[in-house]
Formats: sequence, structure tokens, C-alpha cells
Amino acid sequence: MADEKGLTPRAEDFSAWYNEVVLRAELADYSPVRGSMVIRPFGYAIWENMQRALDDKFKATGHQNAYFPLLIPQGFIEREKEHVEGFAPEVAVVTHAGGRELEEPLVIRPTSETIIYSMFAKWVQSYRDLPVLINQWANVVRWEMRTRLFLRTSEFLWQEGHTAHATEAEAEEEALKMLGVYRTFMDEWMAMPPVLGRKSDSERFAGAVRTYSCEAMMQDNRALQAGTSHNLGQNFARQFDLRYQTEDGGEAYAWNTSWGVSTRLIGGLIMTHGDDLGVVVPPRLAPYQVVVVPISRTSEERTTVLEVADRVSDQLRAAGLRIHIDDRENMTPGAKFYEWERKGVPLRLEIGPRDVKRGEFVVVMRRPPAGQEPKISLAEAEGIVAIPGLLDEIQSAMLAAAIERREENSYRGVDDYGEFKEIMAGPGGFVYAGWCGSEECEERVQEETKATIRVLPFEEFRSPTEPDRCIACGGTSIEEAVWARSY
Amino acid sequence: MADEKGLTPRAEDFSAWYNEVVLRAELADYSPVRGSMVIRPFGYAIWENMQRALDDKFKATGHQNAYFPLLIPQGFIEREKEHVEGFAPEVAVVTHAGGRELEEPLVIRPTSETIIYSMFAKWVQSYRDLPVLINQWANVVRWEMRTRLFLRTSEFLWQEGHTAHATEAEAEEEALKMLGVYRTFMDEWMAMPPVLGRKSDSERFAGAVRTYSCEAMMQDNRALQAGTSHNLGQNFARQFDLRYQTEDGGEAYAWNTSWGVSTRLIGGLIMTHGDDLGVVVPPRLAPYQVVVVPISRTSEERTTVLEVADRVSDQLRAAGLRIHIDDRENMTPGAKFYEWERKGVPLRLEIGPRDVKRGEFVVVMRRPPAGQEPKISLAEAEGIVAIPGLLDEIQSAMLAAAIERREENSYRGVDDYGEFKEIMAGPGGFVYAGWCGSEECEERVQEETKATIRVLPFEEFRSPTEPDRCIACGGTSIEEAVWARSY
Repeated sequence: MADEKGLTPRAEDFSAWYNEVVLRAELADYSPVRGSMVIRPFGYAIWENMQRALDDKFKATGHQNAYFPLLIPQGFIEREKEHVEGFAPEVAVVTHAGGRELEEPLVIRPTSETIIYSMFAKWVQSYRDLPVLINQWANVVRWEMRTRLFLRTSEFLWQEGHTAHATEAEAEEEALKMLGVYRTFMDEWMAMPPVLGRKSDSERFAGAVRTYSCEAMMQDNRALQAGTSHNLGQNFARQFDLRYQTEDGGEAYAWNTSWGVSTRLIGGLIMTHGDDLGVVVPPRLAPYQVVVVPISRTSEERTTVLEVADRVSDQLRAAGLRIHIDDRENMTPGAKFYEWERKGVPLRLEIGPRDVKRGEFVVVMRRPPAGQEPKISLAEAEGIVAIPGLLDEIQSAMLAAAIERREENSYRGVDDYGEFKEIMAGPGGFVYAGWCGSEECEERVQEETKATIRVLPFEEFRSPTEPDRCIACGGTSIEEAVWARSY
Repeated sequence: MADEKGLTPRAEDFSAWYNEVVLRAELADYSPVRGSMVIRPFGYAIWENMQRALDDKFKATGHQNAYFPLLIPQGFIEREKEHVEGFAPEVAVVTHAGGRELEEPLVIRPTSETIIYSMFAKWVQSYRDLPVLINQWANVVRWEMRTRLFLRTSEFLWQEGHTAHATEAEAEEEALKMLGVYRTFMDEWMAMPPVLGRKSDSERFAGAVRTYSCEAMMQDNRALQAGTSHNLGQNFARQFDLRYQTEDGGEAYAWNTSWGVSTRLIGGLIMTHGDDLGVVVPPRLAPYQVVVVPISRTSEERTTVLEVADRVSDQLRAAGLRIHIDDRENMTPGAKFYEWERKGVPLRLEIGPRDVKRGEFVVVMRRPPAGQEPKISLAEAEGIVAIPGLLDEIQSAMLAAAIERREENSYRGVDDYGEFKEIMAGPGGFVYAGWCGSEECEERVQEETKATIRVLPFEEFRSPTEPDRCIACGGTSIEEAVWARSY
């Protein structure tokens, strides 16, 4: 079995490493359907933890979940001009159903703006009905030619927020607020610190007025677009007749936003934290935060050790932690260590007969904070009290390390295109450089270096000195841009 | 607006009443896509509560969630002979994707046995890999000609459990165990007590060896098939080559089960408990268990009353309840009462300036237990302590009332086909009567009375005296059957 040999090291082939990690940590698998994946229980449990954290935040900001149809009349997709150009090439089309050819083909939703705003138009009559703040957890299909597990699959799971507001300012505030929610989630749950900003027009969502994005840096120094939030203006409201009676008795179109993150985040998590032994899951998202491995040779030892394992687990569970006792027989402790390491469980507790006698257990950290020993022995009572704090420490240290790595591989003040090309051809990274605002320069840079503008960064991410020249043409820069190769 | 007039009474037109309730309680809405529905936030919140309760029970019985592709190669569906006969007529088919015609059409899953067991075949090598206990929350599409909101829609949401076992006995035990989980959920959460049993061959799931079902009685005395669990034998294992190495070194096909419940349950909940004022949601599933309506005329009164409303709500929330303060301005208390009544919120708390002075609030029960006054005044501290118990009491009373109604409309010892026909043509209900085991008799009864065998009931539901004659042909009865018209 493939399990017996190690993973391809990241430094040797990052892409091969990634696929091996996903398969061998049993996060996902290829399916018999081209471009579709199967999310296996361990991967799905990470998704469930992501969902819970995000869903709580959506509800805390006043959003409600609902569910809209999977199948959308083809004509709906075609109404918004940019939207159809963006999505028509990648839709899957249902032409037959119930044994007959359909009069109008239906497309499987690639995103749900059209069907959702057609319903909002039915529900919203007056300014009193606004804002409408809806979220949907759903599957979508976008027919991709080149697919990668989690990162780009023909079907994926996501959430899509859709809102309607009475004013442009409220819609803009909402779009930014939800981008902020994503950022908090990526920082504090995923330990995957994104750079935030606006997309250039060429990377805008098809149908949006403005697209905002969270861009995270992977360990190969490429960017991952991890979450986007769109100010849709009145583009969809006009096409779907989403009008309302204003407070002064007039009539106006509503203003919409939409925002989404997907199972792609799991790919981001792997490429942010994984190492040559496997995936490393931040404690707040780990399916199991602690795995207890009882060690024994005789059946008497097994009884004693399992009793302690149960007692310790119960107490940790009572402290709100997710615990698993790996009491499989016919499997060596070493094989178990190896499996949980590969699956990235934050803490392993080893309890053997000698530990029981001493009233201790051994804690092994999958990713110890910088400067700490991975393996420590703790007295039982003391250890139980210490573990929640240890998990918090690991979580914080993972974020700090990711920020440090991101900044080490970010380049500011680059004003020479030769140097820019060398970075992109070499180590890669985020290059903060000037841009004249023209699509021609974006295209030229992409052709020559494969890098694109990931975002026009928000104030807090900008360099102390604004660049004054476009990195490509040398013309006057109108805005600093974060350039990088991306997924 | 439709809101200003009452609902069509159930006694006048149960079906019209049902549609009006669903739309006016804002549980769901028709969509522009034929046969598909939109689940609105209040309806979806009920589904989320159902999901949480069921998911906890699935996990407590050792199951893990995963996710499998929406699109299934057409050839997969065709492998199991009965399966294709059952599902081929109602699938939706994707023939084009990414701008091209597909080489092999893909069907949108109507159920996922085929794709899931093809993956199990990849994962299971040895007896050590068994059992596999998986559940999936997903959408499915079955092209229905006549649709009803929640009860029968072309797309619906559901969960489908899929398991693989080493022995036939284990699979049988699993199928029955999960039927039991459904029953507990329907009894204790939905207050919708089902009758349990085995389906006759003509109503078996396409591809199963045995299908078990939970059948609940609606207020129009028709049966709703609310949840099913299937022992699939080795039918799918053989077609998808799901083999494993046995403990003694041989090779065998695994044994499968599948089981599911869907958003149809929301329809069942409405038809079990709703009345002529709207829906009535059992406390354990209510999106809001308590809605607080502050009542005031002046802005000083509003401040005082809202302060108390907040304090009371915080304490009830701390007790684990789901609370909503309806502080909408420009809306009369009466209009709010009407809205929450229609949406079936178990308890309404009215707090006005006089109540505040007295240190009291008024509690109004949507569905008071038999013999209790719906409206009571309680001192604040006492009321806060009493409310959780009151909700439990309401929950139990709803179950008791539903059992009573079911038994009142169940007929045992019917051995005359004339009498049987009169019941079916008249009030309807569950008739426990003999059956000779022939499909001809099932068909004849259905043609003549529209009733079918809902289940061959389990021991505990059977009549004290087994019938000895088939209700249709008068031949020897081999088993007691529950006959009813159904949804």
C-alpha cells in the first residue's frame, strides 16, 4: 500500500504532495464522475466545523438560512449580460426529465443570483420589507476543464449570501461587513491570514459592480482566492424587477450583495499548514482535537489503561473538547500515531501502564509552538486542566507562523519589472507594485509571468510609500496592487 | 392582501387549507421552476432543528457524514434491475456541460445507492474495514408530475444513510435500528406518532430485499410515509463489486442498508398539528419557542417595556430556549399576535406597562394541553422558571393528542369488505385487516377504494386477534395489514 512510504516532500513537488495528502489523510477521493469528488468523513467533519463557525457568524449578523432550487431556467441566466458571459460556458444543462425533452432547458445553478432575486422580487413590496438578509448552504456545478481535489471541482459545496437593501450605501456596508466576517473566520479559525482588497475589473464577479476578496498565501507562495463579497448594485434588481415602494411613496430598485466561501477552504487549510508528514488541522476546526491512544500488552494492562483513557476523555469532553479514543485492536500504537499525524490531529495523548502507575500521561503536539518540545509528560489532573489552554496556544502560534510566512514572502517597493519577473519565476510570493489601471498591463504581466492582480489592497495592507510607476509599462500608477500567481 | 381573510377551514377543503397554511406562514413558496419549491427562512429553520436532532442521533449511533457527487453516470443507475425500473422514469438528465454534449449522459441523483456503493467498493478490502456507517445530507431530484409543497416536489432535501456490513444479520439489525431512530424522532420531537412495519413487495424500495416504514396519520385520516429504512441484501454489492476478505481468508459480498427522511416531514408536521388559524409547531422543533411582544403607546412606555422584555428574554435564553422579541414599530400588537399564531409559535409573552408595574407578564399558549386555559398571568421570576416546564408539557400533550386521534381513527377487526369500503369512502383512517398476500388483492383494493397497504405492522401494533380472512378476496389471511389512503 501507498501508506507504507512517505509523502512526496513539498519542496520536491508541491502539487503531488497536495494530492497525496488529501487522499492519504482520507479527506477526499476521486469519484467515477469526471471532475466531481467525494468528501470523505474526515474531510467532511472539517467542513461541518467550518459551517458551524460561519453559520453562527451569519446568524449573529442578522442573516437567515433558506433554500432555493438547484435547477434554473436557462433564460434566467441570460438576463444579466455580464453574468451570462461569465457563467454560460461552464454550466451543466438538463435537457430531459421524467422521460421527456424539456421545453426550456434548465441549468444546474453555478451560483443563485438569478433565481434568488426573482423570488425577492415577489416578497419585497415596500421599504418595510428591506433589508432582506438570506444565506443558503448548497451545492453548485461549474464545468471545469482542469480539476483539483477541493480547489477546483465541477461540483462543490458552498454558502452563498444574498441580500437586498434600500440604499447603495447599505449594500456597500453589507458587502464589506461580510468580507470582514470571512476575514475573522480565516484568521481565528483557520489560522490562514488573508490580504483583503478590491478586485480589478477583469477579475470582478460576472454581474457585480465591485468584488472584494480575501487572498491567502499558500506554502508554495501562490495566492488562493478564499472568499469573495460582491456589491451587485442594481444590476440584478433591474433584470428581475426587484422594486420597492420608498418611504416617500416613490418606487426604486433595490441594491443587492452576494458573498460566498466554499469547500475550497479545506484546500487552503491543507496548503497553509500541511507538512511532509500530512495535514495539520488548527484546533478550532479539528474533527478531533485530542486522540487518546491507550498502550498495553496484556489484557489486564488493557483494562487498566482503557479505564484511565475513558476517565480522562470524559473530563476533556466535559470541558467542551472533541475527543476520540483509538482503542482499535490488531493495530500497533506506532501505526496509530502515524495515522493521526497524517490526519493532523492537534494533540495525541499516550497512556501506557507505566504512565498509569505514575498518574501521568504523555501529550504529543502535532504542531508545537515555536521553541516548544512536541512531547511532554503531565500529571493527570494537571494535564486535563492544561489541555484547553495548550490548544489555544497552538491555534495562536499557527496564525502567527502563517502571518510571518506571508510577510517573509511579500515584496514591497518593487519597481523594476526585471526584479518582478525574477521573483515570479523564482520563489514567487505577493509583490506589492504599482499599476496604471489598464487591462493591457494586467494581460501582459499574466502572459509573461503568470501573475495576476489578486487585489487592490485595503488601506491597512498598503505599503507605507505608494508606488508611483506601473510595474509593467512604467506609466503613472493609479493604485498599488498585490500581484501573485494563484490557484 | 390574502392575510386579511382567514384560512379555508380544514373541514371544508383540507388540501386548500394545507397550501394556504404553507404559503401564509411563510414556510415555503412556489418557484419559477416547475415542481421546485423555495423553502423560506421560517420553514428552513424548522428543517435545521430537525437536522440537528437527527444528526445527533445518527452520530450517537456511530455514523459519520460524508458527501458524494450530485451527478451519476446513467450506466450506474441501470446496473441494478429493479432500481432502474423504479427510478429511470423520473430522473433529470444532464446531456450538455461546459458547452459540449457529454459522451455519457449524467443523471441528477434521485437517491445515491449506486454512486455510494461504487465508492465503498474502493474503500473496503477486508472485514476489518466493516461496518461502514455513512450518512449524507443532500438534495435529490425526482421528476414528479403532480407536486405539492413539501410533500412531493421535483427537488427535495433529505438525508440518506448508507451502510455496509459483514453479515446479513448485522444489516437487518441496522435497518431496524435506524427505523427506531426515526420513530423516536417522530414521537419525541415531531409529536407525530407513526405506525411501524414492513412494506409489502409492491411498495418495496426499488432494489431492496425488505423495506420498513414509519406511517403517520394526518388530520384528514390519510397516511403519510414519513421515513423508510431498507435492507438491501447483497443486491447492490453484487452490481458494484463490493467484496471483502473474510476473517478466515475467504471472500464475500457485503450487506447494505439505506434509510432516509426528507423535507416531507415538514408537510407531515403541518398536517398533524395545524389548525384553522395556521401551523402549530411542537416546542422542540419551533424556530422560536417564545415570542415576546412588548406593548406600549408612548415612547417612555416603550423604553420601560423593552427593558423588561430584554431582561426576561436574556434569562430564558440562558435557560437554553429560542426566544425572539418582536419589537417592530408601525405594527399593532394584534397584527403581531396574528402573525405568530399563524406561524405556530408555542408561547407568546405579552408585556405591557401595566404588567411591568405589577411585575408580571402574560403567557399565551398556541396549543394549550387539554383542559388548560390558553392565557395566564405570571409573576416575572416565577414565569421564567415555569416556562421550560410549560413547553415540555405542551410537547407531551401534543404527542398524546396525536396518539389519541390516530387510535380514534384506526379500525380493527374489520372483516367485511363492504364496511371497509364505507370507511375509505367516508372518514378514512387506518384499517387493520387481513391480507392473503397476493398483489391482485392489493391492486383491486386500490382501484376500488384508493387505499393501499401502508405496512404489515410490527408485533406491538398488531391487533390482539389476528384476522383470518383477506379483506379483499376472503381467502386465508397470511398477515394483518394496515390499509389506508395515503399521500
